[in-house]
Amino acid sequence: MIDPRVASGLRDVPPSVMIPRERMLAGFRETFASFGFVPIETPHIERMEVLTGKGAGSDEVLRQIFEVTNKGGEAGKLALRFDLTVPLARFMAKHVHELGVPFKRYAIGSVFRGERPAKGRFREFVQCDFDTVGTEGVVADAETAQVIHDALARAGVPEFTITLNNRKILDGLLANLGLSDRTAMVLRSLDKLAKAGREKVADELMGKRTKREAPPESESEPPEPEPEPLSTEQADRLLDFVERGRGGIEVLEGAEAELGDQPRAVEGIVNLRAVFELLEAAKVPGRRLKIDLGLARGLDYYTGVVFETTVDGWERFGSVASGGRYDNLASLFTDRKLPGVGASIGLDRLLALMEEAGLLAATATTAPVLVANFPEVGPATAFGLAARLRAWGIGAEVFPDAIQLGKQLGYGSAHGHKVAVIVGPDERDRKVFNLRDLATRKEVRAIPFDDLEKAVAGALGAAARGGS
Amino acid sequence: MIDPRVASGLRDVPPSVMIPRERMLAGFRETFASFGFVPIETPHIERMEVLTGKGAGSDEVLRQIFEVTNKGGEAGKLALRFDLTVPLARFMAKHVHELGVPFKRYAIGSVFRGERPAKGRFREFVQCDFDTVGTEGVVADAETAQVIHDALARAGVPEFTITLNNRKILDGLLANLGLSDRTAMVLRSLDKLAKAGREKVADELMGKRTKREAPPESESEPPEPEPEPLSTEQADRLLDFVERGRGGIEVLEGAEAELGDQPRAVEGIVNLRAVFELLEAAKVPGRRLKIDLGLARGLDYYTGVVFETTVDGWERFGSVASGGRYDNLASLFTDRKLPGVGASIGLDRLLALMEEAGLLAATATTAPVLVANFPEVGPATAFGLAARLRAWGIGAEVFPDAIQLGKQLGYGSAHGHKVAVIVGPDERDRKVFNLRDLATRKEVRAIPFDDLEKAVAGALGAAARGGS
Repeated sequence: MIDPRVASGLRDVPPSVMIPRERMLAGFRETFASFGFVPIETPHIERMEVLTGKGAGSDEVLRQIFEVTNKGGEAGKLALRFDLTVPLARFMAKHVHELGVPFKRYAIGSVFRGERPAKGRFREFVQCDFDTVGTEGVVADAETAQVIHDALARAGVPEFTITLNNRKILDGLLANLGLSDRTAMVLRSLDKLAKAGREKVADELMGKRTKREAPPESESEPPEPEPEPLSTEQADRLLDFVERGRGGIEVLEGAEAELGDQPRAVEGIVNLRAVFELLEAAKVPGRRLKIDLGLARGLDYYTGVVFETTVDGWERFGSVASGGRYDNLASLFTDRKLPGVGASIGLDRLLALMEEAGLLAATATTAPVLVANFPEVGPATAFGLAARLRAWGIGAEVFPDAIQLGKQLGYGSAHGHKVAVIVGPDERDRKVFNLRDLATRKEVRAIPFDDLEKAVAGALGAAARGGS
Repeated sequence: MIDPRVASGLRDVPPSVMIPRERMLAGFRETFASFGFVPIETPHIERMEVLTGKGAGSDEVLRQIFEVTNKGGEAGKLALRFDLTVPLARFMAKHVHELGVPFKRYAIGSVFRGERPAKGRFREFVQCDFDTVGTEGVVADAETAQVIHDALARAGVPEFTITLNNRKILDGLLANLGLSDRTAMVLRSLDKLAKAGREKVADELMGKRTKREAPPESESEPPEPEPEPLSTEQADRLLDFVERGRGGIEVLEGAEAELGDQPRAVEGIVNLRAVFELLEAAKVPGRRLKIDLGLARGLDYYTGVVFETTVDGWERFGSVASGGRYDNLASLFTDRKLPGVGASIGLDRLLALMEEAGLLAATATTAPVLVANFPEVGPATAFGLAARLRAWGIGAEVFPDAIQLGKQLGYGSAHGHKVAVIVGPDERDRKVFNLRDLATRKEVRAIPFDDLEKAVAGALGAAARGGS
């Protein structure tokens, strides 16, 4: 007998999670499509050199790569994708000549990372990405935030905040402070601001961080030379700017006053103003949009607008939808410059959050109606009634075995069916059925077969309103 | 520069294929759900011993397995799944205690086989499976055929035939002919009947096949001892029975006359009659159901009803939906006996067939409306109009860059957008728009903004009816 467990860090997704997940994904697909994003699919298996090209993934991600081999195949040549961005870059380099730009694609699929298994962390997880490639225009920037908004609103996420920044403003600030050569170090520290607080981040920026806070050194590479620490004035001006730079669109005024002489920063400010104007025209509620001039989202990849999204009151779950603009998507694979902007929705994180917040209806069925398979009647009547309900757009499950009725109804209650259609021998002869509300156990008796669809639809409406 | 090609036998799926594929999958999911099938997901990576346990896959499939390793992981321990049935068996063994039976699940996902690459054959492909586990009842047998029918009808497959058989009838026939010990050899030959014709199959059964027709011998295993060939009378009676056994439900009468003394065959005949009765009650058109008493569908796995589905006039594509009943799903993983019935829809084969038959609308967009980004106007107006259309349920894409209008309209025509909404400076001031049919190039001018949704919906209806 073989142990039916899954490998470490992997998992089975049961119906109670898959049903809301499929519903959420269907909504995401419809939202993406309503903006003209088209689906593409790339293989789960990519050539190793595509995934490990310089800059394709961080050192950490590359250490976690899953290699793939088959009989007759050479080792080290194939691997499982660790995200959907590198495959998009390869796809665009290969197909841009046929497909042209602008090209708006979405992709939903599993990615694989051999991380150390931990609670809530899995070695296979689903990413939902959408990108607009081949344009530098602000329309695509604003639309990215709008898609995040519409997708989450449609998924039933109650209140959430999309935080925006433009990396050019931070670039201008660092130039102003004489810190352009220390961008990576500064951004790494700023990323900790929300969690560690101003004092600790200031200490770190000024070189006062303790050994314990140092990042673990890579085994294979020599440690980077320690960058020169910031002066007290530099650190103060930086942190003051960032702390004043949180709020509505009005925070851009202060930034403009301080950085009006930095053309790159001004570009970033103009971009954010235009993004807000377009989102207002699209009636995205202003209360859901915030600016945070300290938001960086990673070190090297993004070059313009960046986004991050948290659910109000559930900020500890982190961002559920993030992204930004990049100058050049596919430089590993083609000389053609492909600027673009996109974001990724964290499906599993969002589901975990909504489950914990009690926002997912617990159900183990996809069909609201159970049609009983009454002993002594034979299943043909049930089959016919169920087919009529489906033709009317109402999901109906016929219980497969003619076991004791109570057990069939228990199955329905346990799985979340709302109502049961019951036809005993007497009912069959009279061409009527009994309709039982599985929550309240109330039963309406002897409804004519002719009234099936209306009676069931009515009962389901009542059950949805609380079984009255 | 890294070559952006995919590995041998793998492929990128472009929007022109993904758009109809997603539509088809959405329909399959809705059909499965309308019968109460619930989605589950298992990892793409399974433990090697789960996949290579005795009987899990054929020798051929096991030779094609993709092994997976990561840094720090032991070689030979993990592999990519080659179907969705072995993972279902493992899943049921692991979770049946919580989930109970009957358990009706569907699963849609990629599977991997390192086959020799060939035209139309890929090393990664999508399977769509549904199964009812934990019941021996005829309700689930009939429902399996009904789901195939409803899924294909909904997908727009014009006319198709679901062919049924029950393996017990063949078992009874072979017992009657004294051939029970040669079942595998007989079924292997019968599988060739449609392609090779009666004469060749008869020769093979009687041991007259030539060397060239012998199956290639496995390298690692000794050849099986040659089974004793059939007598001329045995071969004739077998082939007569099978050839008479094709048609409607009436062919069961002949089988009953011949095999009335074989209890197992009688069980199979009673089962098929009940399946047909239930399908009639569910109003599945009788012209789409056929019996073929020679249909075996593989050698060992199925034990009761079996299904196969071909599209009328496109039989050369083979079966697009197949399955059957099995006695014991998960004997590798648990002592608990789990009988069930299920089928698999060949998504990619069906798409290839429908494309060749000209039944897929060629489109490269998911949104029917292009909202032009008119130079000198600024995109906010377009943004607002597009958002209104989406709120009304009409997909609308704003062109991202304010380039020359003709180029924007060319993009729309090339991608399959139906109409364009155009607002120039003059229109903006008058709060009106022009609506252009991208196929006929006819334009209705100066429609008030207030009439946006109705005018566009009307134009899309007209475009769908042929652009009149």
